[in-house]
Amino acid sequence: MAGVMKRWELRKPGRANLELASVEIPTPKPGEALVRVGAVSLNYREKLILDGPGPLAAPGPFVPTSDMAGEVVATGEGVTRVRKGARVLAHFSPPWLDGPPPRVDGMVPSLGGQLPGVLSEYVSFPEAWLVAAPRTLDDVKASTLPCAGLTAWTALMEHGAPRPGQTVVTQGTGGVSLFAVQLASALGARVLVTSGDAAKLDRVKALGAAHGIHRRESPDWEQAVLELTGGRGADVILEVVGGDDLGRSVRALASGGRIALIGILEGFDARFPVLPLFQSHGVIQGVAVGHRRGLEELVRAVDTLRLDPVVDATYALDAFPQALAHLDRGPFGKVVVRVGA
Amino acid sequence: MAGVMKRWELRKPGRANLELASVEIPTPKPGEALVRVGAVSLNYREKLILDGPGPLAAPGPFVPTSDMAGEVVATGEGVTRVRKGARVLAHFSPPWLDGPPPRVDGMVPSLGGQLPGVLSEYVSFPEAWLVAAPRTLDDVKASTLPCAGLTAWTALMEHGAPRPGQTVVTQGTGGVSLFAVQLASALGARVLVTSGDAAKLDRVKALGAAHGIHRRESPDWEQAVLELTGGRGADVILEVVGGDDLGRSVRALASGGRIALIGILEGFDARFPVLPLFQSHGVIQGVAVGHRRGLEELVRAVDTLRLDPVVDATYALDAFPQALAHLDRGPFGKVVVRVGA
Amino acid sequence: MAGVMKRWELRKPGRANLELASVEIPTPKPGEALVRVGAVSLNYREKLILDGPGPLAAPGPFVPTSDMAGEVVATGEGVTRVRKGARVLAHFSPPWLDGPPPRVDGMVPSLGGQLPGVLSEYVSFPEAWLVAAPRTLDDVKASTLPCAGLTAWTALMEHGAPRPGQTVVTQGTGGVSLFAVQLASALGARVLVTSGDAAKLDRVKALGAAHGIHRRESPDWEQAVLELTGGRGADVILEVVGGDDLGRSVRALASGGRIALIGILEGFDARFPVLPLFQSHGVIQGVAVGHRRGLEELVRAVDTLRLDPVVDATYALDAFPQALAHLDRGPFGKVVVRVGA
Amino acid sequence: MAGVMKRWELRKPGRANLELASVEIPTPKPGEALVRVGAVSLNYREKLILDGPGPLAAPGPFVPTSDMAGEVVATGEGVTRVRKGARVLAHFSPPWLDGPPPRVDGMVPSLGGQLPGVLSEYVSFPEAWLVAAPRTLDDVKASTLPCAGLTAWTALMEHGAPRPGQTVVTQGTGGVSLFAVQLASALGARVLVTSGDAAKLDRVKALGAAHGIHRRESPDWEQAVLELTGGRGADVILEVVGGDDLGRSVRALASGGRIALIGILEGFDARFPVLPLFQSHGVIQGVAVGHRRGLEELVRAVDTLRLDPVVDATYALDAFPQALAHLDRGPFGKVVVRVGA
Repeated sequence: MAGVMKRWELRKPGRANLELASVEIPTPKPGEALVRVGAVSLNYREKLILDGPGPLAAPGPFVPTSDMAGEVVATGEGVTRVRKGARVLAHFSPPWLDGPPPRVDGMVPSLGGQLPGVLSEYVSFPEAWLVAAPRTLDDVKASTLPCAGLTAWTALMEHGAPRPGQTVVTQGTGGVSLFAVQLASALGARVLVTSGDAAKLDRVKALGAAHGIHRRESPDWEQAVLELTGGRGADVILEVVGGDDLGRSVRALASGGRIALIGILEGFDARFPVLPLFQSHGVIQGVAVGHRRGLEELVRAVDTLRLDPVVDATYALDAFPQALAHLDRGPFGKVVVRVGA
Repeated sequence: MAGVMKRWELRKPGRANLELASVEIPTPKPGEALVRVGAVSLNYREKLILDGPGPLAAPGPFVPTSDMAGEVVATGEGVTRVRKGARVLAHFSPPWLDGPPPRVDGMVPSLGGQLPGVLSEYVSFPEAWLVAAPRTLDDVKASTLPCAGLTAWTALMEHGAPRPGQTVVTQGTGGVSLFAVQLASALGARVLVTSGDAAKLDRVKALGAAHGIHRRESPDWEQAVLELTGGRGADVILEVVGGDDLGRSVRALASGGRIALIGILEGFDARFPVLPLFQSHGVIQGVAVGHRRGLEELVRAVDTLRLDPVVDATYALDAFPQALAHLDRGPFGKVVVRVGA
Repeated sequence: MAGVMKRWELRKPGRANLELASVEIPTPKPGEALVRVGAVSLNYREKLILDGPGPLAAPGPFVPTSDMAGEVVATGEGVTRVRKGARVLAHFSPPWLDGPPPRVDGMVPSLGGQLPGVLSEYVSFPEAWLVAAPRTLDDVKASTLPCAGLTAWTALMEHGAPRPGQTVVTQGTGGVSLFAVQLASALGARVLVTSGDAAKLDRVKALGAAHGIHRRESPDWEQAVLELTGGRGADVILEVVGGDDLGRSVRALASGGRIALIGILEGFDARFPVLPLFQSHGVIQGVAVGHRRGLEELVRAVDTLRLDPVVDATYALDAFPQALAHLDRGPFGKVVVRVGA
Repeated sequence: MAGVMKRWELRKPGRANLELASVEIPTPKPGEALVRVGAVSLNYREKLILDGPGPLAAPGPFVPTSDMAGEVVATGEGVTRVRKGARVLAHFSPPWLDGPPPRVDGMVPSLGGQLPGVLSEYVSFPEAWLVAAPRTLDDVKASTLPCAGLTAWTALMEHGAPRPGQTVVTQGTGGVSLFAVQLASALGARVLVTSGDAAKLDRVKALGAAHGIHRRESPDWEQAVLELTGGRGADVILEVVGGDDLGRSVRALASGGRIALIGILEGFDARFPVLPLFQSHGVIQGVAVGHRRGLEELVRAVDTLRLDPVVDATYALDAFPQALAHLDRGPFGKVVVRVGA
């Protein structure tokens, strides 16, 4: 695979410093697989990293983004987990295989953060970082699983899944939330979605949501949840807003319910009233993507459920800045960069 | 059991309005058992209720306090769960038998709150509200189990118990925290205790704690926890301070760890930084006493472990105001009112 | 509600001794509700009880059967859990509310066993024995939930639910198995069904099963399961045959999988090879119907999923012997006796 | 580390064919660590393997045994998990890191089985196969953890640990059972031990057991368990006998209890009556050693609890046949081969 490939690099903080570089295609070392990247999906996190320094800012220069789907085109010595020709995903937090996350200096190492990113025509990764891609999705859709898909999966499934007939609340129409709508409704849960956009609420109902709650009409959205559940509250809430909104989630929680705390749209601190959490004996669970076993299970679930991830738009590799601009505008689902031909 | 008995009543908010009344000994209705109260233990909660109106304030006049041990002296028609002569405890949240808590208007009904209190020479309660007292404790010590003991039990055991070799953090030397020290060290956990009083830290080490952290010398106590655990953090933290202190707990948490949020000493709102909770994939669990099965299990554990609850002082029934004053000063363990002769 | 009603009674062992008696309509005692029974569904268990003495044989004379749906027509003093006019189910094991089952002399008391049966125009039961019926089902279909429905629910949900993409195996086309097919496929699991009848396999696929395994063509059905799962095995198996068949289930189990042991068609003893269970670290879970919280959750799930229980035939009250004969022939789903007009 | 070392090899089935060979000390490959073995503990499994062909028989010639403690004396390129000078254990099932076990052809690969054994002066293993040894144990005692210790840990802790006050039953005085006595009593459980030897029962009580049940005086040992628990039964039973004895465990089980099925002393098939398992809603859990995270947790627990494994006798490396003969006689605890000087 000798030759030259393109990849995006960031030499110093600030997305204005992104550069589409030409570099040698890497040769896989022992234990590595060389993957021709087919597609890369973007996450809200890219904005924090590219425009840092913030709490997630990585030292530049580096290759941004974490989520890719592609095909193994060569393998180094001793590789047994994948074969040439296999379609694969990269796992967001490579050292996290199962159980509680391993941390280094308090952080779980991740691609496009403390570890290399994937916005490149080829990447050469240790075989343990790769997972078989779903049979039923092309690279564009498959590339949405490693971060957004797995985050929704972990939030819903890894700490006590919602049961059929239970109520799940999701917020907005970003990638994680839409995956959660699709997965939770496939589980038989009743999904309530909050959004500030009536048209988006209609679209999310088409994905399986039972009810939309308009945040402008119901700014105290927790009251709407309580009304829609006859006062019981929601069994699982995916809190992607954070900040003071966590307090609303706490008040909307059913007895024995669980809040998956995922997002930081309102800041890096969260606040809530404790008495309702005492009375519900509820749980606030920190969620940061998930382990490799979870990704493997998600892939199997996607194939069985024929789950179809929502991609709002795709961009060519050299249009990465435009893809970021789309991300800034708040997509309905995922924004994906096509990397392969 | 005809005759007159004494009990404390509150006619209007404010502990100055407490009155030691003489009333008829009740006759047990069908399904009820009449209990001669032997001892009543006090909780921080009494202060909130007596000096309300606060979020827990109950409408007066009523009989305060929730925790008693005593003896069944008569039973109403159809009673099968207890017999005359049985030594019993009252369960703090009578309708909560197992599983998630049942709520009425958002609250789990409890004795000395929405339901009658126990600071009385006799009480007549439905048999389902009673649990066999431990064989190995007298009434004074047994009376400390229903709220403080069960809260510590629930916090430690009901959502994934600490394993031998894991680290548990407790705060201060109140009733719940001392029970947690005794239970967690009996489980083989390594218990770290924070306190602002060096003499109390010595006493708590005698109860089984491995290390004391002096809050004046280590105001950032979470750093001390991280140092004492080689950077791993604590697996279970019983957060009884609340408010901003929750943020310290979040930063002190091990991967996959759990914070049992119990206390409100610093107020009814809690705040914390979300990134460390994401990275640890940790949990904040609201804890409000516990279910009846938990109390039954605690009683069995106390008998097997020969666990000896820490009682700081006992007072006679008519000295209830002095007992409250002791509570104000911050006891080491529990303050108990002896009710029987 | 003064008057006379009909009910089936068994004076001594043997179904030939069944008698349709006329007795007084009972008056609800304090804490009881009088229910006009709308429908009663039958279970395999009736055969064991009526034709005993066997391990489940109850002492005669008594009223047989356990599963009914009906309407509350009067309430005794102090009843708060149900109201006149409410549509209700009776809970199969009334004292089992949540958590592990309470046993009396080793048995969990149940209706139509150690407790009164329901094959009667009216029953007067303690309010705690009743649960709200699903809004979306009539009495005939609702009557199938308390034993067959709840058994399938408990087997699937109460000890770690199958995840989307996981494989569930069910056996045959009796009531429990068909509920399991409907519930598991609604959860996103891939359901494999064994049966000795090709036509029934077609019908069960229409209910959501992914594959049928013909037991005559594949007597070693565990091999078919291993082939259909690429060697992984099944994640959850509902073993309703028992006896030596348990060994097949053990060999068909995925790593970390679970066998819900439910049935005794092949006898009261089960046998299995232990090495495959060691290697899978699998679990054999005894299942006997379930607790009241489970029934409440099942009702909510049925309403949300619009789950439509499979009733093979209905019979009038006086045709109970014919209904039993139908049960002997092995129905596809449930046999129900219509009791109300 | 050039030079020659001794190791035991088996060229064809039958322990008579064991040979103490002299071979080159291996050189660690990239990713490997060279360990100077200090001690090797023996398990019942060696007998099955050496004297096979049986279900566990491995193809000869090979190096037997699985459990060693030693010191890292050299590391290959790229090793980061261990350093020269570190004291380490080998993990019994190297590919099993966490979660459900990975299987190859139905088996979880293990040392001294499908993978190399450890009865050698040096071994060179991939770094991922190694775990830090406990600080508080020498190599002889530390060598008992990887199979016997971890099996007891997994049986007790990985599927719902016994709670203080609950009852645990162990059988006999082999290595797994004695670890279980020590661990379960350190957890506050009440441990009942069965044995056919009164003197051994006395010794096991000194390790923490609450009661001994003499199997000759109480051949129906399950009755003794029921009596000692007031009819409740045992919450966790470690079944090391297997065969028909599983039926006794099933009858001795408390509601919601769990049998950890570990042993095959009575054969490779197990039998039990299903009705008691239905009524207890109990679980039979297959246990085969455990994952690497479990071993890491056990090491931490041993250090915190100061748990002192029971070693019945030690033998020199060239006395391995005598050590096997001791194993045949049924040791009290573990038999260990000292390998280092």
